[in-house]
Amino acid sequence: MIDLHYAPTPNGWKVSIMLEELGLPYTVIPVDIRAGDQFKPEFLAISPNNRIPAIVDHAPADGGAPFPVFETGAILIYLADKTGRFLPSELRARSRVIQWVMWQMAGLGPMMGQHGHFALYAAEKIPYAIQRYRDEVARLFHVLDVQLGKTGAYVAGDDYTIADIACFPWMMTHKAQGFTLDDYPNIKRWYAVLRARPKLQAGLAIGKFVKEPFNDETRHVMFGARAKEMRGRS
Amino acid sequence: MIDLHYAPTPNGWKVSIMLEELGLPYTVIPVDIRAGDQFKPEFLAISPNNRIPAIVDHAPADGGAPFPVFETGAILIYLADKTGRFLPSELRARSRVIQWVMWQMAGLGPMMGQHGHFALYAAEKIPYAIQRYRDEVARLFHVLDVQLGKTGAYVAGDDYTIADIACFPWMMTHKAQGFTLDDYPNIKRWYAVLRARPKLQAGLAIGKFVKEPFNDETRHVMFGARAKEMRGRS
Repeated sequence: MIDLHYAPTPNGWKVSIMLEELGLPYTVIPVDIRAGDQFKPEFLAISPNNRIPAIVDHAPADGGAPFPVFETGAILIYLADKTGRFLPSELRARSRVIQWVMWQMAGLGPMMGQHGHFALYAAEKIPYAIQRYRDEVARLFHVLDVQLGKTGAYVAGDDYTIADIACFPWMMTHKAQGFTLDDYPNIKRWYAVLRARPKLQAGLAIGKFVKEPFNDETRHVMFGARAKEMRGRS
Repeated sequence: MIDLHYAPTPNGWKVSIMLEELGLPYTVIPVDIRAGDQFKPEFLAISPNNRIPAIVDHAPADGGAPFPVFETGAILIYLADKTGRFLPSELRARSRVIQWVMWQMAGLGPMMGQHGHFALYAAEKIPYAIQRYRDEVARLFHVLDVQLGKTGAYVAGDDYTIADIACFPWMMTHKAQGFTLDDYPNIKRWYAVLRARPKLQAGLAIGKFVKEPFNDETRHVMFGARAKEMRGRS
């Protein structure tokens, strides 16, 4: 059994989709990030970066004690290697998948996160920052569109892999962030193919997102002074 | 032989350090990112994200055609698996290293990059953005300091691994970014241990950074309209 410490965010969805695709039994342990659950010591012992999602595998392959894993890219690789699925073992195919998982982790995720912050969540609207991240997200969409045009199928080649599972949930926020996939025909094709997968849909259904707008209190917890207090330092 | 497409930046240093630590023969192919070399089609064929560094391995383990790898996290994993060094094969130790490499790729690198942009490079000084990323970098330093306090040695445990090689070059920019390691005693200890490694120093010596300040032309190429033109889209 796997514990999934979870909130329904793009990073959370990566792992709930992966677990559903694999058909592994798991228990969802909700983490209320707007209330600050991610700063509690018991969560920190599992996720040293105070972020969701994280997993604890109670039946690791070596038969030993429960094993915690944090960072979505590392969770996806861990679960893929545990099951032998969605990450090939052949040298080139494996590296290509890891290259695009890294691209998602270092680029698409953080930059859509920054654009989302400045364009949607921040109380202060700062044109320079919104434009900076809008340009960077558009650049990244272009890179992905070219890549999907080359493969003609999935992000890292002919097969559905953890590179697709990593990219899809962030791509789901494109409309809320003011982008249209009409500008990216290869992404649009790929997106529709993934969207139709029943197990991907099952992963997205875990703990539907509460569509309450951010308010001063949630901003305070997530971006501001209370987050600092809870971390116990300035 | 390995081609290293390179500029002396924190991400470039990760790979030059790794190659020096491994003692693999390699050829440095300079990429002048301030002049826009990263947007040339021949570079794009190797690095689809237009970013340095990237490598081409002319002697991959499968004996086949030259193999290109982009994204530093993927390059570090590729080279570690090629040589059997700096990334253990044992389940838990391997996952722990990958978890911290992902943490560097998704957190420390991008967030120090954003702080550097707003605090040092951007023509416009925006207090909200500078503070946002300063807080986030301080949070990440705290996370790393706690982790290094736990291991008492290296980032992912008792051994020097690609997690250390990934984190060190970004940590080198701490002073320029206005942080002091006196606030992070475990990082300070670890930093001194790494700084003393001759092969790490050799990696840093590859193509010393040209200390010219950013000007309107380099800003235009790297952050602005010329980068867009070169990418061929708005």
